[in-house]
Amino acid sequence: MYIPTFDDVKTARERVTPYIHKTPVLTSTFMNELTGAELFFKCENFQKAGAFKVRGASNAVFGLSDDVAAKGVATHSSGNHALSLSYAAGRRGIPCHVVMPRTAPQAKKDAVIGYGGIITECEPSTSSREAVFADVQAATGADFVHPYNDPRVIAGQATCSLELLEQTGGLDAVVAPIGGGGMISGTCLALSNVAPDVKIYAAEPKNADDAYRSFKAGHIIADDAPDTVADGLKVPLKDLTWHFVSNHVEDILIATEEEIVDAMKLIWKRMKIVMEPSSAVPLATIIKNKDLFAGKRVGVIITGGNVDLDKLP
Amino acid sequence: MYIPTFDDVKTARERVTPYIHKTPVLTSTFMNELTGAELFFKCENFQKAGAFKVRGASNAVFGLSDDVAAKGVATHSSGNHALSLSYAAGRRGIPCHVVMPRTAPQAKKDAVIGYGGIITECEPSTSSREAVFADVQAATGADFVHPYNDPRVIAGQATCSLELLEQTGGLDAVVAPIGGGGMISGTCLALSNVAPDVKIYAAEPKNADDAYRSFKAGHIIADDAPDTVADGLKVPLKDLTWHFVSNHVEDILIATEEEIVDAMKLIWKRMKIVMEPSSAVPLATIIKNKDLFAGKRVGVIITGGNVDLDKLP
Repeated sequence: MYIPTFDDVKTARERVTPYIHKTPVLTSTFMNELTGAELFFKCENFQKAGAFKVRGASNAVFGLSDDVAAKGVATHSSGNHALSLSYAAGRRGIPCHVVMPRTAPQAKKDAVIGYGGIITECEPSTSSREAVFADVQAATGADFVHPYNDPRVIAGQATCSLELLEQTGGLDAVVAPIGGGGMISGTCLALSNVAPDVKIYAAEPKNADDAYRSFKAGHIIADDAPDTVADGLKVPLKDLTWHFVSNHVEDILIATEEEIVDAMKLIWKRMKIVMEPSSAVPLATIIKNKDLFAGKRVGVIITGGNVDLDKLP
Repeated sequence: MYIPTFDDVKTARERVTPYIHKTPVLTSTFMNELTGAELFFKCENFQKAGAFKVRGASNAVFGLSDDVAAKGVATHSSGNHALSLSYAAGRRGIPCHVVMPRTAPQAKKDAVIGYGGIITECEPSTSSREAVFADVQAATGADFVHPYNDPRVIAGQATCSLELLEQTGGLDAVVAPIGGGGMISGTCLALSNVAPDVKIYAAEPKNADDAYRSFKAGHIIADDAPDTVADGLKVPLKDLTWHFVSNHVEDILIATEEEIVDAMKLIWKRMKIVMEPSSAVPLATIIKNKDLFAGKRVGVIITGGNVDLDKLP
């Protein structure tokens, strides 16, 4: 297992800059009064392909040698990594093979196809997606870019927190959603090097709290096909993300489905931005744990904006 | 009739700066490819109180002498001006009386009350709102701040296009929605002074096309209670806004209800921002009149984001 270093992050930043947006950081008087903290929302919902995942995907795609790249890339994904890898592959002009659950939002499938991705469907469970993926990879010889358990992907995601830190001029804490742990691992990798005093909290749906239970148990616990409105956060930790989570995360905070939906509505209504239910989990946990964040400068990562507008919770 | 000057705009800018956001300008590769133009979206949906109207309202409220201010301010409004005047009055610590149609979205009524505004309801017609308002004003002695036909309000709205011009470094055209004409008049006032070559287009719902018909006829035509999903654009032109529209607007472009809703969904989906149906009318008219804007640098004013999320069209 290769653990990415801060040098990898610096390389990634230079490599991905032409292909991504430097997304804005929004603040809200209402949200500050509600929570008692000073919140800085890093708006990756405005990112290319609609999510932070384009950072890691672009780092992987543009780091390939020409002969490896020629066979294309492949992945399995609950959605945003699929969009992002398709986008990055399209920018490089190479094929992108995507295994997606047949139950993934139609909006996400359409967007993958729109970016030129080639979809093979699987059942909505981790075991099925891994089996179908093995077939696709064997048939194409494409380079596997895992949605999160990949040092290239984690180094790419790390560029998000670097930007956030520069844009805010310093923070006491960062809260990001946790599914497989790619964004959190990137945050750990970046901040443990440039701002080791910043506390890193992961926010997770109670209905898919495998990372929370792993963190408390001290080893990875993986569930098959948990059910939550935060559909980007259903996947389990893997060895590489577990390394960062177990070494650098201060705590994992959980929120119920109702708390997540309430936080999402509050963001839509008061901040006027469209974001996914997954992106509302950090605010839900901050509202629930006010004492932890009161008086602090807190970065909140709005991870993506790809929501099916016809199927809002 | 006092016609505001560019000096009034400069005074307004200095006066309102402490109470408003300098809102961001967003761009979208997708929207540029769709229209063939280079579009710059001025996001007043992120503005204080959720709309550009806080610019004019703050200019009026903070320009009052202390003795006039003591009796408070009053207005009638289809919504955003009411929010904005309540916000500005609250910042100055004076009362704000608001006459609103009983059919106005509940979200807007709740927000007015949230900002400390005192609501008196009227029927949803121009004639009723003016009659009820006369009673309220007589009873309170409050200073009338008209939603748009007021030189202080127009000078305040003018600060939006000044910012947009500075943020983009130059434009060929600006497209803004037209209802009563406050935003368009402010745009005319600002740009005719600092960038007279920029063409100004007003965008109007076909179902409330009184400004379009006025423009073609050469005199004001006012309808009572037109019906459109763009509920901020139902009010008619008045003498002061007619002055700016008739002298400085290049053309008025109209869009059907379906075109407005399609444009709104496109903005929500691709730009990840929450905005009102009224704010989608400019993009709807640009998509419909591609030849007019192809190859041009076009400012698009997203006027507000106060939409009732439970009643989306």
